[in-house]
Amino acid sequence: MSASVMSSSASAGGRVVALCGGVGGAKLALGLQSVLGPELHIVVNMADDFRHLGLHVSPDLDTVLYTLGGLSDRQRGWGRADESWNFMAALAQVGGETWFALGDRDLALHVERTRRLAAGESLTGIAADIAARFGLTAQVLPVTDDPIRTIVVTPDEELAFQRYFVARRCEPAVRAIRFDGAAEARLSAAVQAALQRAGLRMIVICPSNPFLSIDPVLAVPGLREALRAAGVPIVAVSPLVGGQAVKGPTRKIMDELGVEASTRAIAAHYRGLIDGLVLDIGDAAEADAVDVPVQAVPTLMTDDASKVKLAEDVLAFGDRLAASPQQSAHRDARS
Amino acid sequence: MSASVMSSSASAGGRVVALCGGVGGAKLALGLQSVLGPELHIVVNMADDFRHLGLHVSPDLDTVLYTLGGLSDRQRGWGRADESWNFMAALAQVGGETWFALGDRDLALHVERTRRLAAGESLTGIAADIAARFGLTAQVLPVTDDPIRTIVVTPDEELAFQRYFVARRCEPAVRAIRFDGAAEARLSAAVQAALQRAGLRMIVICPSNPFLSIDPVLAVPGLREALRAAGVPIVAVSPLVGGQAVKGPTRKIMDELGVEASTRAIAAHYRGLIDGLVLDIGDAAEADAVDVPVQAVPTLMTDDASKVKLAEDVLAFGDRLAASPQQSAHRDARS
Repeated sequence: MSASVMSSSASAGGRVVALCGGVGGAKLALGLQSVLGPELHIVVNMADDFRHLGLHVSPDLDTVLYTLGGLSDRQRGWGRADESWNFMAALAQVGGETWFALGDRDLALHVERTRRLAAGESLTGIAADIAARFGLTAQVLPVTDDPIRTIVVTPDEELAFQRYFVARRCEPAVRAIRFDGAAEARLSAAVQAALQRAGLRMIVICPSNPFLSIDPVLAVPGLREALRAAGVPIVAVSPLVGGQAVKGPTRKIMDELGVEASTRAIAAHYRGLIDGLVLDIGDAAEADAVDVPVQAVPTLMTDDASKVKLAEDVLAFGDRLAASPQQSAHRDARS
Repeated sequence: MSASVMSSSASAGGRVVALCGGVGGAKLALGLQSVLGPELHIVVNMADDFRHLGLHVSPDLDTVLYTLGGLSDRQRGWGRADESWNFMAALAQVGGETWFALGDRDLALHVERTRRLAAGESLTGIAADIAARFGLTAQVLPVTDDPIRTIVVTPDEELAFQRYFVARRCEPAVRAIRFDGAAEARLSAAVQAALQRAGLRMIVICPSNPFLSIDPVLAVPGLREALRAAGVPIVAVSPLVGGQAVKGPTRKIMDELGVEASTRAIAAHYRGLIDGLVLDIGDAAEADAVDVPVQAVPTLMTDDASKVKLAEDVLAFGDRLAASPQQSAHRDARS
């Protein structure tokens, strides 16, 4: 074993950085938190953030906070458990916009974050404080404190992401996806620190929508370079199960963008970035068409046990990649 | 009967303008609305308004809107009936300020108003729209669209009104009360229009706290002059019942300001402005010490019937004053 492999093995208790969007990614992040605790640093998409009713709403960030804080509604898939909707009923009564549902409990986070942002605090600082209050052991890091906004280009118009996703229920065809503000956004200092080589074990790309949730994270200047420079395995988990998205519009968007809805296409999308791909056991037939090492395991996360199991499988795969001279060479060649 | 008396009698179906603060005043306003419907124009104190959690909260305005819309919680005395408090519980969880309770339903009004104010709408325009949505027949008019803020001067510090009233529960002694911004505030065009002489029947000062709720209304430059120039009876309803305030700190504040807690002192406070005072039957012994005509009736409003009855008594008293040559002369001499 080479020195670099020794180093990777020795850091098996080290820091793991996970890139994450909303629901699907947060499920794996919960599994990773169970295994890793404070070693887990989750870099979260904030290009879905938007101003609604005068409030700063951060859908992916909040999904991660609620999920890892044990506060999420598992049936609904978003928002808080034990939620009530009296605010929305009263908002309708006073003529307010009701296309985006905000639960009474959920609303507290938006109101308080908006107040703190207006007082000059950063999204990063607020997320860290809320994560601590919710009892998370993992670190939750918005990729940037600068505004990035996902715009979905459809045949008829350009839609802000939540307008496309919620108000229009992903119905318009997607011609292109743009991340306004990304070119000027600065990678947060906390994310930069998390990606320092020392003590870093691996990087995981959670099974979030690559186009809508991971691309806007990767669009922040300097992040791809920082990921490559970290010198540890980068493992993506395919969001497809049997060629289908578990939830959300991944498959539909791939069709509309003219991308084959396949695990191979997911791997191609991340080509040059990832060292390995975890795919669903149901997609194992596609393994040969993927040009990085793959690990086929059950990826459908239906309960806590399956989230932890997938997290363990992903970590074990990453550790094996770190221990493989071929993959070390691959990483060296790439970086 | 003189021509002026004929005119006053002929206008018995005319417009009534009521000056109003929060809870006690709103009860009479509800009675007046039952009798008068769209003829009632309520000029509301907005010096209790404050910015809380980044939201524009208008306590008196909302008490009037909820009370006259049949939405208020009659037991609690403020806020909405059938209210829930999940927002507050979640706000505590994220470390937000919880000294001022905002119900889940109530919150919708604050969020929507704040959004509309930020979009450039006026408090007056928003109040009119909400009043219509809540099914009020009366007009609800903030006295001004400019900011006025009541400051309570205590021995130790100066407190914004809600800090004194809610956070400190009126405990600090009141040395003085100040209305910041009043000198620069402009009487709203809607209030000016409501006070035009044509079609005006009378002006009622509701049994709100004279020092905290009515004074900041009267502090808007031009309002006293407009009230006097209207040429109709101005009738105040004493907030004291048997020398005590029904609710709130009126009695305590009068003591602290060195004002005798009496109906006579209430009359003295409004001297030069009012043409008559409605006092509680239990304070009838003080009638002789009041230097304007008085009407002693039961003023404790415990149910809808007593609110309507007091409204009818107040209107009948005002109409009698309008029909009285002596009072017409009094008004002529005064104006």
